[in-house]
Amino acid sequence: MKKTDTIAAIATALGESGIGIIRISGEDAIGIADKIFSGSKSLREVDSHTINYGHVYFGDEIIDEVLIMLMKAPRTFTGEDTVEINCHGGILILEKVLHAVLKSGARPALPGEFTKRAFLNGKMDLSQAEAVIDIIEAKNDLALKAGIRQLSGALTENIKTIRAKILEQIAFIEAALDDPEHYSLDGYSVKLRKIVKKLITRIEYLQKSFKDGSIIREGINTVIIGKPNAGKSSILNLLSRSDRAIVTDIAGTTRDTLTENIKLSGISLNITDTAGIRETDDIVESIGVKKAIEASNNADLNLVVIDGLLPIDSEDISLLESVKDKQAIILINKSDKELKVSVDDIRKYSDKEVIIFSAKDNTGVDELENMIKAKFISNEINFNDQIIITNIRHQEIINEAMESLEMCLSSIDEGYEEDFFTIDLLNAYEALGEIIGETVDDDVVNEIFSKFCMGK
Amino acid sequence: MKKTDTIAAIATALGESGIGIIRISGEDAIGIADKIFSGSKSLREVDSHTINYGHVYFGDEIIDEVLIMLMKAPRTFTGEDTVEINCHGGILILEKVLHAVLKSGARPALPGEFTKRAFLNGKMDLSQAEAVIDIIEAKNDLALKAGIRQLSGALTENIKTIRAKILEQIAFIEAALDDPEHYSLDGYSVKLRKIVKKLITRIEYLQKSFKDGSIIREGINTVIIGKPNAGKSSILNLLSRSDRAIVTDIAGTTRDTLTENIKLSGISLNITDTAGIRETDDIVESIGVKKAIEASNNADLNLVVIDGLLPIDSEDISLLESVKDKQAIILINKSDKELKVSVDDIRKYSDKEVIIFSAKDNTGVDELENMIKAKFISNEINFNDQIIITNIRHQEIINEAMESLEMCLSSIDEGYEEDFFTIDLLNAYEALGEIIGETVDDDVVNEIFSKFCMGK
Repeated sequence: MKKTDTIAAIATALGESGIGIIRISGEDAIGIADKIFSGSKSLREVDSHTINYGHVYFGDEIIDEVLIMLMKAPRTFTGEDTVEINCHGGILILEKVLHAVLKSGARPALPGEFTKRAFLNGKMDLSQAEAVIDIIEAKNDLALKAGIRQLSGALTENIKTIRAKILEQIAFIEAALDDPEHYSLDGYSVKLRKIVKKLITRIEYLQKSFKDGSIIREGINTVIIGKPNAGKSSILNLLSRSDRAIVTDIAGTTRDTLTENIKLSGISLNITDTAGIRETDDIVESIGVKKAIEASNNADLNLVVIDGLLPIDSEDISLLESVKDKQAIILINKSDKELKVSVDDIRKYSDKEVIIFSAKDNTGVDELENMIKAKFISNEINFNDQIIITNIRHQEIINEAMESLEMCLSSIDEGYEEDFFTIDLLNAYEALGEIIGETVDDDVVNEIFSKFCMGK
Repeated sequence: MKKTDTIAAIATALGESGIGIIRISGEDAIGIADKIFSGSKSLREVDSHTINYGHVYFGDEIIDEVLIMLMKAPRTFTGEDTVEINCHGGILILEKVLHAVLKSGARPALPGEFTKRAFLNGKMDLSQAEAVIDIIEAKNDLALKAGIRQLSGALTENIKTIRAKILEQIAFIEAALDDPEHYSLDGYSVKLRKIVKKLITRIEYLQKSFKDGSIIREGINTVIIGKPNAGKSSILNLLSRSDRAIVTDIAGTTRDTLTENIKLSGISLNITDTAGIRETDDIVESIGVKKAIEASNNADLNLVVIDGLLPIDSEDISLLESVKDKQAIILINKSDKELKVSVDDIRKYSDKEVIIFSAKDNTGVDELENMIKAKFISNEINFNDQIIITNIRHQEIINEAMESLEMCLSSIDEGYEEDFFTIDLLNAYEALGEIIGETVDDDVVNEIFSKFCMGK
């Protein structure tokens, strides 16, 4: 391991809480922590992976009563000696303990620097490091699962397998060109063609996951439109509640005032409440509807709510027509009472899928969830054996590798010399190496880690 | 230790960060954690105070890669078996891990419930438990120091010593009344008088610390007033910066828009920027000044800034007169240039302390700090051997104990029977017991812990 300086940062979120952690990593981590710590024995004498009770001092002054988590290299996150100081979770106390650590010889860690060291020390590859930040930022179950799977090395293994197959061919061609007496290229292009075809299929499979990846990462931008009193707000509330029922309800998570982020079967729906748009508006009805239609133009999905207790009117019709060329699902709401609107009535104006819905007694919610999933997530998604590419950097690299492999294929078909093949194969090989960080510029690495939060 | 259920909560602040912790405490903590954990061995087999790498599962699904901190009773914060799951610091991931823990048999902890258990299990007394929350919420160095000192048991020891002395006398009187043959009360009231006098002195000493305690806890409400361009804002900036220079600068701490919280030599100044008040106001000058004066009426301290480059005018004079009966310090600002205002000029209108100041080259900052300290903090404050009562509950109890001791004293002076003395002594004894939690109602205990944050 290369000699590096020792870094430190507050690793937990800032706020008044039970526990806050200062993380220290590097050759002097234990020595630095020991300078400010007083416990039953010196930290230099304790075993790895132990928890040690004591006090942190700054000079003669006790700053806090702490637990010191001590982990010796290489069996740590960064691969370096690591000390985590488990303090009381106040902002001032964390600042003061960090200050004491810095005064004792550590320097402040840059954002992502702990994970960068894990990468540089070979504890994880670049795609795994990127998964760390995806996991932390995950807003829905599928994003979290995709992140965990990527962290576990699923993408790495896949990419490594593809690269190994490419490298095998490059090596064979080079060997044959260097040493034609021992290696024959007779009929090789037919064999290579098959291999490249197979590789292209594998990469197409990854490309297909982009769409799911983007939905998983960004969520589905959804607009609920409908006449006043059609029940837009109660549908929004219902969907929000179904979310709250699964996750533990904790105050303090931020909430965008205009767009609600709702988790539905593990996907995020970013729902813009057009009811809200309307209600701030004092002018005639038709203007409200126009505004809602406007909002729906940029949406991935429109939920059109029809008041099932009133016959369809011109306003409903204009809404139905406005989503003609968009992704939309029609909800005939209020089915807990006797409906005045049938699916056939809707059919006259729209060929979109229709759900008989009741925000009051939950009718149609499951159907809606399944319909949204079917529309936006491939049927084949199965996280136990599939890789989803959620990262845009990875997408671009995969497209690049695909291009190179396709060029290789056409070079074969056009009967070029074998050494042409190696150029394209090498391009694909190098491109894919960027995903796992084997063939990547320092600049790219720095940019990736600069997006991390402090203390990670 | 009594049999209790096992509780769990997110113990770190919520936000995207490197590390987040789920804390579990109770008889089944290890078993519950073991159900959802997969590592190199079962958590039931690992040693206490060890760190164990592995994965948390919900059913078959991996939720996160974690470190499990396992600590066995009684050498833990709560005195019970405790498991801390060190996860990635995302909100969703913490919610999911907590959810898995709850599904495995823990119940959600109430705010402060971990500390309450520490108290109930005799790991700390009530005043120490209260110190935990003071430490977490500490906004300045002195508050933090007072909290740490209280947590270390300094107040406890002091109270226990006083109670022991009281109890000794109660015991003697009771014994003498029960068994006059062996214990004589002859001349006892003279002796008791001396002892009660000494106890009163000790309690007065604690009472005197209330003023410091309140300043430490709340900070000094400070208003900066002065004419436009006198340099109010640059003084505010200067004071803010001197703060930033000591503590590590970290984004994300909240900031009140109207009042700045500035740390000066360990005390908090809550500075209301009257410059801000003025600038939102478009009307004539005198109205701005009036508003500033209004703001200064509720302040603990007024900093009156005089523009030293302009002769004193009627506006300055009205400001100087407005603080006549208030705590105030006069700053003649801009001393980096040739001053047109002398201390003698100010003396004509005010007898307050005056500092020749320059926000530009820092002249007068140290003098200002010392002056504020002298005004608000007793000279004797020395945290190494003094106890500062910062808690209002403690203040009330101490006042109550004082009253009882004074009543005892007057009973002695008025020559009452000895058994009258025991009533007052017992009242003082019981009152003081409430500080450390020995003689306290469940309701009070519950109320104290309900103020805690989640996960502590």
